[in-house]
Amino acid sequence: MAGSSFGTLFKLSTFGESHGVSMGGIIDGCPSGIELDLLQIQADLNRRKPGQNSLVSERKEADEVQILSGVFEGKTTGTPIGFTIQNKDQNSKDYSHLKDTYRPSHADFTYEKKYGIRDYRGGGRSSARETVCRVVAGSIAKQILAKLGVQFSTYVKQIGRIELVSDSFFNQELIDASILRCPEPSISQQMQAEIVDCKAAGDTLGGIIQCVITDVPIGLGEPVFDKLHADLGKAMLSINAVKGFEYGSGFSSVTMKGSEHNDTFESSGATKTNFSGGIQGGISNGMPIVCRVAFKPVATIMKTQESINNKGQEILLEGKGRHDVCVVPRAVPIVEAMAALTILDHYLRQKANQL
Amino acid sequence: MAGSSFGTLFKLSTFGESHGVSMGGIIDGCPSGIELDLLQIQADLNRRKPGQNSLVSERKEADEVQILSGVFEGKTTGTPIGFTIQNKDQNSKDYSHLKDTYRPSHADFTYEKKYGIRDYRGGGRSSARETVCRVVAGSIAKQILAKLGVQFSTYVKQIGRIELVSDSFFNQELIDASILRCPEPSISQQMQAEIVDCKAAGDTLGGIIQCVITDVPIGLGEPVFDKLHADLGKAMLSINAVKGFEYGSGFSSVTMKGSEHNDTFESSGATKTNFSGGIQGGISNGMPIVCRVAFKPVATIMKTQESINNKGQEILLEGKGRHDVCVVPRAVPIVEAMAALTILDHYLRQKANQL
Amino acid sequence: MAGSSFGTLFKLSTFGESHGVSMGGIIDGCPSGIELDLLQIQADLNRRKPGQNSLVSERKEADEVQILSGVFEGKTTGTPIGFTIQNKDQNSKDYSHLKDTYRPSHADFTYEKKYGIRDYRGGGRSSARETVCRVVAGSIAKQILAKLGVQFSTYVKQIGRIELVSDSFFNQELIDASILRCPEPSISQQMQAEIVDCKAAGDTLGGIIQCVITDVPIGLGEPVFDKLHADLGKAMLSINAVKGFEYGSGFSSVTMKGSEHNDTFESSGATKTNFSGGIQGGISNGMPIVCRVAFKPVATIMKTQESINNKGQEILLEGKGRHDVCVVPRAVPIVEAMAALTILDHYLRQKANQL
Amino acid sequence: MAGSSFGTLFKLSTFGESHGVSMGGIIDGCPSGIELDLLQIQADLNRRKPGQNSLVSERKEADEVQILSGVFEGKTTGTPIGFTIQNKDQNSKDYSHLKDTYRPSHADFTYEKKYGIRDYRGGGRSSARETVCRVVAGSIAKQILAKLGVQFSTYVKQIGRIELVSDSFFNQELIDASILRCPEPSISQQMQAEIVDCKAAGDTLGGIIQCVITDVPIGLGEPVFDKLHADLGKAMLSINAVKGFEYGSGFSSVTMKGSEHNDTFESSGATKTNFSGGIQGGISNGMPIVCRVAFKPVATIMKTQESINNKGQEILLEGKGRHDVCVVPRAVPIVEAMAALTILDHYLRQKANQL
Repeated sequence: MAGSSFGTLFKLSTFGESHGVSMGGIIDGCPSGIELDLLQIQADLNRRKPGQNSLVSERKEADEVQILSGVFEGKTTGTPIGFTIQNKDQNSKDYSHLKDTYRPSHADFTYEKKYGIRDYRGGGRSSARETVCRVVAGSIAKQILAKLGVQFSTYVKQIGRIELVSDSFFNQELIDASILRCPEPSISQQMQAEIVDCKAAGDTLGGIIQCVITDVPIGLGEPVFDKLHADLGKAMLSINAVKGFEYGSGFSSVTMKGSEHNDTFESSGATKTNFSGGIQGGISNGMPIVCRVAFKPVATIMKTQESINNKGQEILLEGKGRHDVCVVPRAVPIVEAMAALTILDHYLRQKANQL
Repeated sequence: MAGSSFGTLFKLSTFGESHGVSMGGIIDGCPSGIELDLLQIQADLNRRKPGQNSLVSERKEADEVQILSGVFEGKTTGTPIGFTIQNKDQNSKDYSHLKDTYRPSHADFTYEKKYGIRDYRGGGRSSARETVCRVVAGSIAKQILAKLGVQFSTYVKQIGRIELVSDSFFNQELIDASILRCPEPSISQQMQAEIVDCKAAGDTLGGIIQCVITDVPIGLGEPVFDKLHADLGKAMLSINAVKGFEYGSGFSSVTMKGSEHNDTFESSGATKTNFSGGIQGGISNGMPIVCRVAFKPVATIMKTQESINNKGQEILLEGKGRHDVCVVPRAVPIVEAMAALTILDHYLRQKANQL
Repeated sequence: MAGSSFGTLFKLSTFGESHGVSMGGIIDGCPSGIELDLLQIQADLNRRKPGQNSLVSERKEADEVQILSGVFEGKTTGTPIGFTIQNKDQNSKDYSHLKDTYRPSHADFTYEKKYGIRDYRGGGRSSARETVCRVVAGSIAKQILAKLGVQFSTYVKQIGRIELVSDSFFNQELIDASILRCPEPSISQQMQAEIVDCKAAGDTLGGIIQCVITDVPIGLGEPVFDKLHADLGKAMLSINAVKGFEYGSGFSSVTMKGSEHNDTFESSGATKTNFSGGIQGGISNGMPIVCRVAFKPVATIMKTQESINNKGQEILLEGKGRHDVCVVPRAVPIVEAMAALTILDHYLRQKANQL
Repeated sequence: MAGSSFGTLFKLSTFGESHGVSMGGIIDGCPSGIELDLLQIQADLNRRKPGQNSLVSERKEADEVQILSGVFEGKTTGTPIGFTIQNKDQNSKDYSHLKDTYRPSHADFTYEKKYGIRDYRGGGRSSARETVCRVVAGSIAKQILAKLGVQFSTYVKQIGRIELVSDSFFNQELIDASILRCPEPSISQQMQAEIVDCKAAGDTLGGIIQCVITDVPIGLGEPVFDKLHADLGKAMLSINAVKGFEYGSGFSSVTMKGSEHNDTFESSGATKTNFSGGIQGGISNGMPIVCRVAFKPVATIMKTQESINNKGQEILLEGKGRHDVCVVPRAVPIVEAMAALTILDHYLRQKANQL
């Protein structure tokens, strides 16, 4: 059954395979009269792009978005925004050896079993290339949310064992000053060393991205199934390679006592602590929303691995292709995009709760 | 906007406030011709019930479900199954002092800001009493999945700092032999001691529930937004007091290398390790699905706390009412219910992917 | 797949079989803070009730609605409104002879083929008794719309060959002054004579209901699939026994020229004629919305008919039970309810189109 | 709120304005492994195209569809099918005089009031050009349904006052032998004469399209709101210029008695008559599905009309542009497409009703 749409009122649907003609999508339900900054969308795309620097995949993609509808004389018209991003540097021949092969911890096996057929080139639909569409839609969502005062700070909190201990809001300038999008320079350097070592070993790394969202209007989120953090969680878990999601105190709450964990109020309605992570009972309370997303290490490694083909025969699989040692820095704009899509959708939903 | 429904093909909608007339729901899309075991539903409800033993809330609820439609001569007819569970032991007077008060880390403040009105009795709609409806629907889903061979093992993995280190499948008999639903007796006893101490101090505890699901058909889960683990994650995060979700290696994957983390295949298509947690590319691969859900400590404590009222005045809030020191053991059937709803929904969805 | 819900933001889900324990439903997404007039809901239910007068079914049902949640101290809280209506006068034994029988132009055959099982008592889920839930939800929707100034005039326009030629707005007092809900007394009397004759012959009649809605805000309806009249049409076609729907000029537009049919503007934006029926391009234009719904004659007749049983054997079916000669007058509040649900849902949807 | 998607399991979302860069869409939920005949899609598009003959709009559009994803080596992969159709012969300058003008019985006024902004070129999103996307998706749906044996016969039943009295299934060859898609040559010639006269007068005509669908599997359609004919009705009413929908006996049932109207069974389960139009209780019964769709006369006429501009000033509007005198023949493939989308969606939905 159809599963390529996200959101209810601000709704993104995407299509596209890694090595197909193009990626693309439709944003349906975008409010009208919004002046769109196309350069800003491109800037967000550039943050996700391969080939940005020596630590990421060398695939070269212009990743230029073409808006096909829904914008007239620079403003949204309220009608669906169709868009495409061409696939250019596909090198499909890199993948012909994978036609009958199941790579470990990829989706080759499951797609073939599910559908009885699969586009094996570059992972087809299972490739993280699909997320380019999310960044387009998320960038538009962020522009709309910015008019409401909502601000995002999304950054790399951990790579391998190197961790930035903080849940602060950092400016994007500070974040982007780091090639790894970790706003603390000393930590960023340690992470970089870790990646360089790992690349030399032909291996890969995972990490954690933290997203801090400030000035979210109070009252977003719908009880009981569509709690704001439940929709945020689904949004993040739908990103390739994500293995876990937590908000506020998250897993660490488990070892706290209620008396330590409760966020007591100030007379303004703000709370003195923010273990709740900006959300109580599934509804935003005006405090910063803080969440963390865990990424597993990239499955494609530059080492020979044992595997099987689609006849069940054991084979040896050699590491090939142009892959990231660690996708986490490039995933920062994707996490931010999914957060923005979720918050804006709930903002529009909340408009229907009072006459 | 409406947020009280879960699922697309096997769809649960719920209603009810903690101290209203009754809780209830509709299951729409239940396949026809299924013989229902009502005693089994009641048994699942009893596992969630307050008043089971001395460590949980003393509220007395029969929690008897009444099926109002959709079942004829013991079998499902394919039409919606309506049901109610009466609220009996409400003691609403316990809550009259909360009419104008916002309790720390509860949903009092956010509901009032969102809706401009709130049913303050026992938390109203924000109470975990709503989950009684999930257990009814989940029990039906489990009965249907059992016919397909799918089995669930859901248990308490951690309370406070006491942890059961295992991701095994334990029989329900073993799980229920523990008053805390932790299948390892020595660990269960340590947890019990922790809870007794905590109760004496008027404080509360959180914990982790693990859910292991075996013999899930290969191919469940829809790319790209409705990945199986994304829907599982949303399901779990929608449960009261949940702060985090992970599956397979989860957050621990962050510190692993790709070469360690990759699950290599056996010739059967099974994998030698299961860091993927039974799901690759968002689609079940036939291995056991393993996920973990983190619960914060209960917000209602038996200590005096500072808080505010709805005029922004500072007040002192005394601990009252009949509350759990730790809800985690009672949440086991809720986690299992949400897992079953998710798996069955995706099973039905997968039927539409091939002609 | 689940099909028992209507609406997107103001969403009704229903359950219940004709001879089951009770009918009921959930209204999810009702705006908060609305003072509900329960007597008004009951008054609407009474207009639909069997046993109102000598021309309709003699089944006796109190049709008293019980609100189970979502209303606190007389006002809606924004949480789902659960409700039930008990089934009392079921006389299921009237139907035992139908256990293996397919009645002509009923849903007996199709339900059994679809589901492999059916509740044959009184038509089970296929009975128009289900519409009692729609009247409850529609009555709430009307109360909310009344606050926005929207007014409904729904009446019988045709029974058999007797037709009221008008598309005016008639007051409900005038409509209800007629036992048949036809606001023109002389026409109503002719209709009544037609029904009396038909009843004597053991036969049944169909008819047309017209719904006129005034002061609908401009701008309701979503291009391109969710046009206001497309959703109105689906709403009406989902009512039992409905065979056709048209709005504005409807089928009669086919024989008009464009130059006759075009509604030219007044400087106010109103139009001089209203062939558009208050909707242009799927969006309300502020003129009265006018639509018509065609009902076939009741399938249960008091004559002996040929039919078959579920073994494919030919049988003779005798007319039994307590049925209406013509359901059209009782369907007036149902049509109005479905119109109100559609308009309110689109009102809430439109709130999301501008920031 | 988003309204540009149709269907639940086989789901079409569309975008595009009449004079924008391109039209396009996404088909999500297409079953995998289906061999697609792209020439057949193009053939269906050609039947809808402007410039086919002297009686329709002279706008020249190649209307070539480009498939961007979801098809691999000629077969569907189960992933979303993205597609675009370029807009080429736009002549946007034809429309610059309409920037501030509201044309009678068009959507200019309502779009501007709804959104506060509108793309006035060629009607923007409100143009029937959007339906080109429906024909693409409908053609794919028909190819899938053909494998199941389902056959469509869609033709012009009435133009102005000239009517073909029949509800037969005609072969497409016979239908397409008529430039007006009316399969009875003598009637087709009378219609042609009517159109020629009307064109000379600068006026326009409406008409009725009939769709007959045979060998539909028994059991499609979901009670109670998603009845098969309710979804068919919504599908048809969402097509531009449609004012009414009926199925089976339709509006004519109103003047029949129950004893005349009831479809008595043959021992096979087929019925001797088909007033039910192939659907009983909202569920297909295996008899031919027969429905009719009423189109109003085209609003753009080649006569001078009074109108207003967006300042409320009265203006004179001259007839300009390249418009159809009667769109009904070109709407035949659109009606058929919407029927196919509805039937296939319900076919997939029915797969979830039994384990």
